[in-house]
Amino acid sequence: MLTKEDTNYLTQTGPGTPMGNLFRRYWQPALLSQEIPAPDSAPVRVKILGENLVAIRATDGTTALIQERCPHRGASLFFGRNEEQGIRCVYHGWKFGTDGQCVDMPNEPAESDFFQKVKAVVYPTKEMGGIVWAYLGDAEHQPELPKFEWAQVPESHRHMTKVTLDSNYLQSVEGDIDSSHTAFLHGQVGKNDLEVSSKFFDSNKALRYLWSRDKAPKFFVVETPHGLTIGARRDGGRDHYYWRITQWVIPSVSMIPGEVGGTQRCNFRVPMGDTDHQFYRIDYIPQRPLTPEERYDFEHGTIHPELKPGTSRPVRDLSNDFLIDRALQKSGTYSGIRGIVEQDYAVTSSMGLISDRSTEQLGTSDMGVIRARRVMMRLAKHLESGGEIDAHMDGEIFFMRSPALLVDKDVPFDVGARRAMDAEEEWSRDVEWATVMPVLEDENVPGVNA
Amino acid sequence: MLTKEDTNYLTQTGPGTPMGNLFRRYWQPALLSQEIPAPDSAPVRVKILGENLVAIRATDGTTALIQERCPHRGASLFFGRNEEQGIRCVYHGWKFGTDGQCVDMPNEPAESDFFQKVKAVVYPTKEMGGIVWAYLGDAEHQPELPKFEWAQVPESHRHMTKVTLDSNYLQSVEGDIDSSHTAFLHGQVGKNDLEVSSKFFDSNKALRYLWSRDKAPKFFVVETPHGLTIGARRDGGRDHYYWRITQWVIPSVSMIPGEVGGTQRCNFRVPMGDTDHQFYRIDYIPQRPLTPEERYDFEHGTIHPELKPGTSRPVRDLSNDFLIDRALQKSGTYSGIRGIVEQDYAVTSSMGLISDRSTEQLGTSDMGVIRARRVMMRLAKHLESGGEIDAHMDGEIFFMRSPALLVDKDVPFDVGARRAMDAEEEWSRDVEWATVMPVLEDENVPGVNA
Amino acid sequence: MLTKEDTNYLTQTGPGTPMGNLFRRYWQPALLSQEIPAPDSAPVRVKILGENLVAIRATDGTTALIQERCPHRGASLFFGRNEEQGIRCVYHGWKFGTDGQCVDMPNEPAESDFFQKVKAVVYPTKEMGGIVWAYLGDAEHQPELPKFEWAQVPESHRHMTKVTLDSNYLQSVEGDIDSSHTAFLHGQVGKNDLEVSSKFFDSNKALRYLWSRDKAPKFFVVETPHGLTIGARRDGGRDHYYWRITQWVIPSVSMIPGEVGGTQRCNFRVPMGDTDHQFYRIDYIPQRPLTPEERYDFEHGTIHPELKPGTSRPVRDLSNDFLIDRALQKSGTYSGIRGIVEQDYAVTSSMGLISDRSTEQLGTSDMGVIRARRVMMRLAKHLESGGEIDAHMDGEIFFMRSPALLVDKDVPFDVGARRAMDAEEEWSRDVEWATVMPVLEDENVPGVNA
Repeated sequence: MLTKEDTNYLTQTGPGTPMGNLFRRYWQPALLSQEIPAPDSAPVRVKILGENLVAIRATDGTTALIQERCPHRGASLFFGRNEEQGIRCVYHGWKFGTDGQCVDMPNEPAESDFFQKVKAVVYPTKEMGGIVWAYLGDAEHQPELPKFEWAQVPESHRHMTKVTLDSNYLQSVEGDIDSSHTAFLHGQVGKNDLEVSSKFFDSNKALRYLWSRDKAPKFFVVETPHGLTIGARRDGGRDHYYWRITQWVIPSVSMIPGEVGGTQRCNFRVPMGDTDHQFYRIDYIPQRPLTPEERYDFEHGTIHPELKPGTSRPVRDLSNDFLIDRALQKSGTYSGIRGIVEQDYAVTSSMGLISDRSTEQLGTSDMGVIRARRVMMRLAKHLESGGEIDAHMDGEIFFMRSPALLVDKDVPFDVGARRAMDAEEEWSRDVEWATVMPVLEDENVPGVNA
Repeated sequence: MLTKEDTNYLTQTGPGTPMGNLFRRYWQPALLSQEIPAPDSAPVRVKILGENLVAIRATDGTTALIQERCPHRGASLFFGRNEEQGIRCVYHGWKFGTDGQCVDMPNEPAESDFFQKVKAVVYPTKEMGGIVWAYLGDAEHQPELPKFEWAQVPESHRHMTKVTLDSNYLQSVEGDIDSSHTAFLHGQVGKNDLEVSSKFFDSNKALRYLWSRDKAPKFFVVETPHGLTIGARRDGGRDHYYWRITQWVIPSVSMIPGEVGGTQRCNFRVPMGDTDHQFYRIDYIPQRPLTPEERYDFEHGTIHPELKPGTSRPVRDLSNDFLIDRALQKSGTYSGIRGIVEQDYAVTSSMGLISDRSTEQLGTSDMGVIRARRVMMRLAKHLESGGEIDAHMDGEIFFMRSPALLVDKDVPFDVGARRAMDAEEEWSRDVEWATVMPVLEDENVPGVNA
Repeated sequence: MLTKEDTNYLTQTGPGTPMGNLFRRYWQPALLSQEIPAPDSAPVRVKILGENLVAIRATDGTTALIQERCPHRGASLFFGRNEEQGIRCVYHGWKFGTDGQCVDMPNEPAESDFFQKVKAVVYPTKEMGGIVWAYLGDAEHQPELPKFEWAQVPESHRHMTKVTLDSNYLQSVEGDIDSSHTAFLHGQVGKNDLEVSSKFFDSNKALRYLWSRDKAPKFFVVETPHGLTIGARRDGGRDHYYWRITQWVIPSVSMIPGEVGGTQRCNFRVPMGDTDHQFYRIDYIPQRPLTPEERYDFEHGTIHPELKPGTSRPVRDLSNDFLIDRALQKSGTYSGIRGIVEQDYAVTSSMGLISDRSTEQLGTSDMGVIRARRVMMRLAKHLESGGEIDAHMDGEIFFMRSPALLVDKDVPFDVGARRAMDAEEEWSRDVEWATVMPVLEDENVPGVNA
């Protein structure tokens, strides 16, 4: 439960808000690199943390993120001319360099030096992993780029979708953190869970068996420099627990359980205004390129959302009741809604643009949600009172994974999973298989040993 | 004329408002029974008196009306699974029985009894006359179901349309009460009124003649246990008056003048928010089933509104200027708009979402409107000050009609019409005919005696 | 730069606002005469200065502008019956004469004189130049109709388009005043400016050469009885300056530089609410009818906006990014947007519905904008403090032009251009040609002497 005041505190990220100030300490994805594909290509509108900006790729190929309103009289620089290392307002031809400095005022007398006094707001940008990253905070607090593994692997190894969603960022982040919903919202009915799962889980059939036989895992949360490491514990048979780990990264990123040796997953939620956000969904395989079949499946399957052609808007949304198929809901998928992202979006957007938390009733499975809110509020208040934060200055701390794996019952999960969470490590699936096989044999799981 | 404060008082019906509290003493139509046609069929959203709810038909065939937001984290139960005598949120599988009690929390540990502490708001529902009725008030004040005659007759005897309208309920109710608009808004131009009326009036031609020759009747209003009985008096020739009676039923129902021995009419206006409402239009013949021709005419004629297929929204509305036909308005119908309901909706919605009454100028023909407002305000204030109301606890008081008939000049209309207003009475049209015939002969009405 | 308070002061024109009171001292275009083409034709909604009105043409051919809400209960008179020298509400048949007096209440008793006490607001209207003009102020301050030249010439001599735009009127007016944007927003790239201009400028090729070779003219502003005369000064070669004159007419009209002996131009901006306005664009040739080719070009070219069929809404607007053609923007037109009006609308609407002036940075080229704002505020405050204004009472002061011409360097521009600004004068293009020819010869302008 949150008071309305605390909900406002957590959900408002515009200029000058405490939570906005916290967000402004972190690099944020501003747009896909491919949205500004070539030098001097068309400007693109970017709304982020309540600020209206325009992104360009300059003549030298670098990127710039500039205030949308021309400093002169406020015409949108979206309609501007991106040319010769700067953007020119079409209203009176004023030109701004990639640092925001006005460098030309062709409608003012040639002898005027007024242009030197005019400067537009420009935020630092860097490109990494197919993303143009932006830093909207003070120069003195600018950290290193967060070295997420997916941003380090070649483009061939990952698939990324950007989608614009109509709700405050926080209720989506809360859904990402809360792994207990998976077996329900994304589950199946009327079928053996082992059989119906997507083919991308095939290699981990044994672990999935452990998952599906316990829908009420016990949650453990550990604070880390990057945020929280959340472990969902299930019985692993004999002397192991089966742990599914979610990494929540301050302020609005989460890595949901990936497969050891297989696909890893990351969700970015970037506030636009207070009632919408950009969602970046990234799937990648660290060790190898995606096969054409895997990529086809990401583009046409249920893991990445289906978008209206030419837009970042999902085909299924509240306006069409997510095209829910009530017959399918009876006997096929639990939700009757097609698409993992759409299923998440259905429940989170149905809470309202900014969900009222004042009447919620949280259980033990909401421990990750509760702890993440507390960390966010504590950090924002810490900044408000003049304190500093620095754990995130080092980009290396983001180089990690969120595995699902077996750990010896005697060992704390974050200790036992330490190697598997390290993105540098290669980890053998064979170890897992050898460990879980006796459990399966004990329980006579049909089809597993076939 | 109403001050803005009084207009707010009368038009706001959300939780905690005085007028909302008055509405909550009465059973309200929540939706059509046929919208939740079968056990475990799909949930349907219902918005009523500012509250967002979901209606289901449970496994045993009974109905339930439950808060839309899941008590857990606020996901919409509209997307829920209606199964085994309850509704299950698709987010985490929490299940609520038809009394609102949480009966299952599959994502919490099996030993947890947290589910016992969680209860959703559920309002009592009953079915009668093809309607699921809801009672949103305190249990101690729950009255009997209102025994409207249309809800007692077999389904074969009535035709009912539910339509969603974009305006506050009150301006629509005021239109229903105010019968003096009928000869204008719903009238004809350039033709003899006797000839052009709908064929459903054919059997009462003589009375219709009396109606059409006097467009400025004198209004008389009598307070009753159910609300108001409003009589519009016209000359009936020789020693009779011709009375057309409207029953206004607290808080937002009206029965408009029906034909003795023929079709009776009832209008329900149920507030959704403060700027929209559900309108239920019911026509019925107490004594017999509608003929196929009559039913066809209700479905394709001008009495019931024409809806956008698959919705409860009218085809003609303010967004398309009600498809007004200016040529028709010149020489055919008075309004140039097709459909009785649409004609009403055109004028009431054109007043704005909540009509400003501070500049209105009311005449003697608005007496019903004035009195109904006073009754509403008096009752709501009575409740506010701790008073009680109980006239409506007995459902039998709603078993009545609103006839149009001749009454001896010496007899008060509500006395003279007493038998005709009694829904139990059968009344002979022959009596009326014998009474009015001399008038017609005196006046040499063409075609009446042919 | 304007504070938010001053911006509100300048931009709000509803009833009771200071700026609204200033506007109410002037006749305003209410709609095109052709929108109410014939006696007793259909009523048309008119929103002006925050007031919702209905325009009719009465049986005798005169026009009337009446409040949209029926004084009785508020139904819209748009749905009313325009008949026999008045408008009748379709709700209860109340009829209002063209002076607003209620003349019939057919639903009230015949003996009632209540109708005499009911009067609707009606504003004086007059027709001139294809426009129905309205005066919304006090009778005692009613001026003569403004005798704009375009409204005096026969209909054959002018082309007029009415378009509804979504922004406050002021930012559009500011664009009209500010002629320094023309060479940019409406300019060309990658071509010789002389070659690419519209054929309507052909006859003034020489002057256009002077215009295009100096994109940073110096501005001079002179206060006049009608508002401001703004001169943009460019070098005219040898002993002349080349002046392009804009007439700004209080409160929201501008005449942009026309051709001596050719097309003259006038822009009217009439506030509807505070976030939209009607724009009337008028082009005319004082001396002769437009040729069929000229008229075709106005209807299908880039000077007048392209409207969605059957509406006054532009095809290109913010919702479709003005269909900007980025390739064309690279090498064809400066903006990549088709249409002069649409180019203006793109920059002005992109500033927001009411542009925030608190961060603007104005240069010397914004002198006209600054001065016009000052005049508006001064006059509105003058009225607020009980003062009077009367320069505009005489309609003759609006009979003028805004020429572009050569003036001897020793002569103040408003003195030298006096004859050319006089709409009664005929002015010979030959004079101009003789004056500018030596300049062209000096500079060896290719193609000019061919």
